[in-house]
Amino acid sequence: MALIVQKYGGTSVGTIERIKAVAERVKGYRDAGNQVVVVVSAMSGETNKLIGLAQEISENPSPREMDVLVSTGEQVTIALLSMALQAAGVEARSYTGAQVCILTDAAHSKARISDIDDARVRADLNEGRVVVVAGFQGVDQQGNITTLGRGGSDTTAVAMAAALKADECQIFTDVDGVYTTDPRIEPKARKLDRITFEEMLEMASLGSKVLQIRSVEFAGKYNVPLRVLSSFEEGGEGTLITLEDESVEQAKISGIAFNRDEAKLSIKGVPDQPGVAFSILGPVARANVEVDMIIQNIAQDDTTDFTFTVHRNDYKKAKEILENTARELKAREVIGDDKIVKISIVGVGMRSHAGIASTMFEALAREGINIRMISTSEIKISVVVDEKYLELGVRTLHEAFNLAEAAG
Amino acid sequence: MALIVQKYGGTSVGTIERIKAVAERVKGYRDAGNQVVVVVSAMSGETNKLIGLAQEISENPSPREMDVLVSTGEQVTIALLSMALQAAGVEARSYTGAQVCILTDAAHSKARISDIDDARVRADLNEGRVVVVAGFQGVDQQGNITTLGRGGSDTTAVAMAAALKADECQIFTDVDGVYTTDPRIEPKARKLDRITFEEMLEMASLGSKVLQIRSVEFAGKYNVPLRVLSSFEEGGEGTLITLEDESVEQAKISGIAFNRDEAKLSIKGVPDQPGVAFSILGPVARANVEVDMIIQNIAQDDTTDFTFTVHRNDYKKAKEILENTARELKAREVIGDDKIVKISIVGVGMRSHAGIASTMFEALAREGINIRMISTSEIKISVVVDEKYLELGVRTLHEAFNLAEAAG
Repeated sequence: MALIVQKYGGTSVGTIERIKAVAERVKGYRDAGNQVVVVVSAMSGETNKLIGLAQEISENPSPREMDVLVSTGEQVTIALLSMALQAAGVEARSYTGAQVCILTDAAHSKARISDIDDARVRADLNEGRVVVVAGFQGVDQQGNITTLGRGGSDTTAVAMAAALKADECQIFTDVDGVYTTDPRIEPKARKLDRITFEEMLEMASLGSKVLQIRSVEFAGKYNVPLRVLSSFEEGGEGTLITLEDESVEQAKISGIAFNRDEAKLSIKGVPDQPGVAFSILGPVARANVEVDMIIQNIAQDDTTDFTFTVHRNDYKKAKEILENTARELKAREVIGDDKIVKISIVGVGMRSHAGIASTMFEALAREGINIRMISTSEIKISVVVDEKYLELGVRTLHEAFNLAEAAG
Repeated sequence: MALIVQKYGGTSVGTIERIKAVAERVKGYRDAGNQVVVVVSAMSGETNKLIGLAQEISENPSPREMDVLVSTGEQVTIALLSMALQAAGVEARSYTGAQVCILTDAAHSKARISDIDDARVRADLNEGRVVVVAGFQGVDQQGNITTLGRGGSDTTAVAMAAALKADECQIFTDVDGVYTTDPRIEPKARKLDRITFEEMLEMASLGSKVLQIRSVEFAGKYNVPLRVLSSFEEGGEGTLITLEDESVEQAKISGIAFNRDEAKLSIKGVPDQPGVAFSILGPVARANVEVDMIIQNIAQDDTTDFTFTVHRNDYKKAKEILENTARELKAREVIGDDKIVKISIVGVGMRSHAGIASTMFEALAREGINIRMISTSEIKISVVVDEKYLELGVRTLHEAFNLAEAAG
């Protein structure tokens, strides 16, 4: 008998019919002899509807009251799913975040879980009940309702699995697993049976938005085996996300991630002196512009060139800031390009395999794709290329690393 | 400085515009130097919408899960009203029933309040905040969410006022007070400035459905001055419901109540022996038919006649049951009439004034209205008459007791 925590997102519980289907699926796992805890999100559209009501009242509503408001969305779902389970003959009981003491800090709308009291859930499981828990929400020390931010239901599921020492945390979503790259770009993309937490983090942050990043971090920290499955297809095995192990090790590269909406900015001829990086990036950060890749070329004469990438939406704002900085620093010029994309190869295998980078650069060169920037980490190599090369670049790399074939 | 608990029902908070209007009204009371606690219902229509969702899933959903579901309605309103107050420059904080520990028994969907922890509310009031509390809901000893049943927000408000020893509990509704009778029947009906709890109970149960009965009982028990006001008209004084006092004593009769949807059933020629009333009413009660007036005539020979009234919707069911009983008891016959109404005069004054009943009967007789049944209590006299006499009867009695003129 295994203890499984399952999470169903807003689309999976978006209608009464779908809630009934989830109940049938949960019943299947229960009837197979498992103990099941189900974490659910608000029915799709509900959270946005509630936010819309708040915005009719105030442009800047209190975060505390926003959390009181939006947390009702999941509360509706837990009640309806429990009823559906009961109607299917499964004993079930629902709990809000407050009722199972999902304790968080007081950072409304982006709270972090600090503790879960699992006593009540365990007692229900031991009496043969399925337990249905509201995702996305908790309470702070003072009993105020908090929310974990968008996608936080994944985090609730992982935290619940960690607290219960569950055998597996299953995230049901609208995809049937994690792929080597986006199948819409490379039809040969293959579903991965396994991937490591670290790889998943790199894949997620780069655009394969299957899971909320924080939930993956959490799962890695507490070593909760995490499985991504389709809520609409029965019988699939999905992708298991675990700690690095032998079978993972065999693949050099797990996948090709990419990000379409990048822009790059360079400030050239900056005096090469201590503190110059902060002089350049400080004003950008203060304007709440998130910077992704950062590259500083070696100095020539007494000046250096400094390049970074931002989200395309922030390009204009960042460029204005940088032009001010350039005047102050008496830099030579500011140039930018908002027609670029980032393509990355991700894999824990590259730690122990030499020549990965050269394979990557060679493959791109063969297709005439000019590399504009390069940035590397332990398990990832990213390149910036012209926007027009996105699809060609992804397909070229997918082929170069034989990702269409399962690792042997 | 007074401490006021205000309750706004579903219609009063039915749209964003109305919620903003309530915020402005609350601000007015607060700015006048009062401490204000606001109890709110779900936005009108929301509770029915939630019940509809549940019914799509199950014909007989678990009462525990129904309470989890429908309690979200008030939670939405407390958040929105708090935001509206804040937007109007009033510090405010919302609480669910669980958060202010509105402790109830475990009778889901019809729970009774046993205790309220007022510490948190007092702390907020002392810091100058308006406190917004979800009506209609509480928690049992195990932390399960409970609801008080339809209209329970009135009870929440009164219980909160009792716990806080508030100076007044104000119920904002869609009428501007309690009237001597229904103005749609008697245009000369007059708004009462004051009425006693007992009279209000008789008026409410007889059709002037301004307040939930249980909340009036509660207010009477804890002597919480209760005021009914219009949420749509500014500046009215409404009707104050209090313990009996001198100014109330002066009026003999406070109002004329009535109930349209009555039916009466008689079983004739029943053997006059101990236990016969139970033999007749037991099966009716077991079928969940509520019985209102009960009359047993004195025995003639060895038999007696037994008459009672029920809601018109229950007439057929009750008649069938009674016909079975008649066969078992070898009674002579069962007769019934579902075209009757009940008209009552209500007033604590009748305790100390003789001749009220004869004034009533004389007035009706003068108009040729035949009385079919009579039933009396300490502060009420009810008669059953043919349906067609409802309006004439009400107007006749309103005139006979000079109710159009304020008591001098």
